[in-house]
Amino acid sequence: MKKKKNKPLILVTNDDGITAPGLRALAETMQQLGDVVVVAPDSPQSGMGHAITLNNPLRLEEVEIAEGLKGFQCSGTPVDCVKIAIDRIIHGKPDLCVSGINHGSNSSINVIYSGTMSAAVEGAIEGIPSVGFSFLDYSYNANLAAPKHYAKIIASNVLRHGLQQGTLLNVNIPALPLLKNNSDKNSIRGVKICRQANAKWEEEFDERVDPNHRKYYWLTGKFKNYDKGEDTDVWALSHGYVSIVPVQFDLTAHHAIPFLNKFRFDS
Amino acid sequence: MKKKKNKPLILVTNDDGITAPGLRALAETMQQLGDVVVVAPDSPQSGMGHAITLNNPLRLEEVEIAEGLKGFQCSGTPVDCVKIAIDRIIHGKPDLCVSGINHGSNSSINVIYSGTMSAAVEGAIEGIPSVGFSFLDYSYNANLAAPKHYAKIIASNVLRHGLQQGTLLNVNIPALPLLKNNSDKNSIRGVKICRQANAKWEEEFDERVDPNHRKYYWLTGKFKNYDKGEDTDVWALSHGYVSIVPVQFDLTAHHAIPFLNKFRFDS
Repeated sequence: MKKKKNKPLILVTNDDGITAPGLRALAETMQQLGDVVVVAPDSPQSGMGHAITLNNPLRLEEVEIAEGLKGFQCSGTPVDCVKIAIDRIIHGKPDLCVSGINHGSNSSINVIYSGTMSAAVEGAIEGIPSVGFSFLDYSYNANLAAPKHYAKIIASNVLRHGLQQGTLLNVNIPALPLLKNNSDKNSIRGVKICRQANAKWEEEFDERVDPNHRKYYWLTGKFKNYDKGEDTDVWALSHGYVSIVPVQFDLTAHHAIPFLNKFRFDS
Repeated sequence: MKKKKNKPLILVTNDDGITAPGLRALAETMQQLGDVVVVAPDSPQSGMGHAITLNNPLRLEEVEIAEGLKGFQCSGTPVDCVKIAIDRIIHGKPDLCVSGINHGSNSSINVIYSGTMSAAVEGAIEGIPSVGFSFLDYSYNANLAAPKHYAKIIASNVLRHGLQQGTLLNVNIPALPLLKNNSDKNSIRGVKICRQANAKWEEEFDERVDPNHRKYYWLTGKFKNYDKGEDTDVWALSHGYVSIVPVQFDLTAHHAIPFLNKFRFDS
């Protein structure tokens, strides 16, 4: 696949898999901004984090995603999809890498567990301006007008201005309709640049017994926000704003270096 | 399992699986510092990143790891192991969570892909002082004396001083013997507190054809270090030092917020 002059090449992927409505919505939106290549997992990969496939080979197959929109399904993880798209399909770097639209939130600590965000992180590691989009409506038949609207505006901005080296965007869109008039209080109020809220999941494992009398456990949990700040993604979303968190993959806690230099390691 | 007074409770996990020599070595070392609970994956989970198991239930089984050392094998990922250990085995938080000793490096960008490090990140999210240990000798029969020596010293320091909120340690040990005398140039020279090097993998997919004439791809790649700094983990390891990088799970690129506030999102 060759890049055309004056038309950006946009790689679209996700973690809900090649058949997800959010992927089709994002690909169709990106077609308004450039040429689109879709490479997505052949099965749902939610919660896959930054997993890569080391011990198995990958399959790659061309499929039709919608009328006039071809793409590739890959047997690997979201991160595998980005890697194989660059090496085997695009044979180079696209101008933009977008992931989503995820069916469910990736705000605060969810960024760590999210396959959607890991695909965008991988794009950024490759030096590609990258954005992950997530929508806070989990239903398969959700109205995607609002996330499509903001995906277009945000992707346009990123194509125009680029992103700073080593950073990418985590975009979450609240489950509200687009603003129709200024007196409409139950619609999206705009966009806020935020930091990742200090929140976590409190897990409980649901213990059951199978027909062979062996125990098994389902992961369940409650989301707990410990962060009172009004500059966080959780605050923005709960107040009707689209949240944008700039994310980095340098995980160094630079502020902790002086503390550790006081440790004694010689005995 | 109950915590004993005056004796720390240490959770040991890994990503190479319950049978890995590195896990046994780490568990035996930690037994010198406190009471040990081992909960590790029942199969190798390298490259699993921060994956969690959402769509399948988990199994948990008690096994004997070495003489007098019992543990639990879990059918999930390294992150699942930490979560289920807290909720179903310890019924609370241990005083320390250690992961490894990984057979292979987790320096620089590998921290993102590593199941070993993700288990330690999960421990830190839970508020537990956490450390991931990795040894740069990939061989199954590697002499683990040096990583055991440093795991004990570093874990002792962490038990004594704690770690700053929201941080954990990524420890890598070079494939060199312990220093016997000061004139020995080919042994470990000491410990350095470092930042994560700016390095990445340049992937190539090896294309093959299966007996049914269908293509498949193996992920391969070369490690490229773009970072000339002498304060990085890659520099320390290549100069004979144990590297310790403080890691954080707040991924916000705070420095990018002013740049993004210049974007226009209203059209």
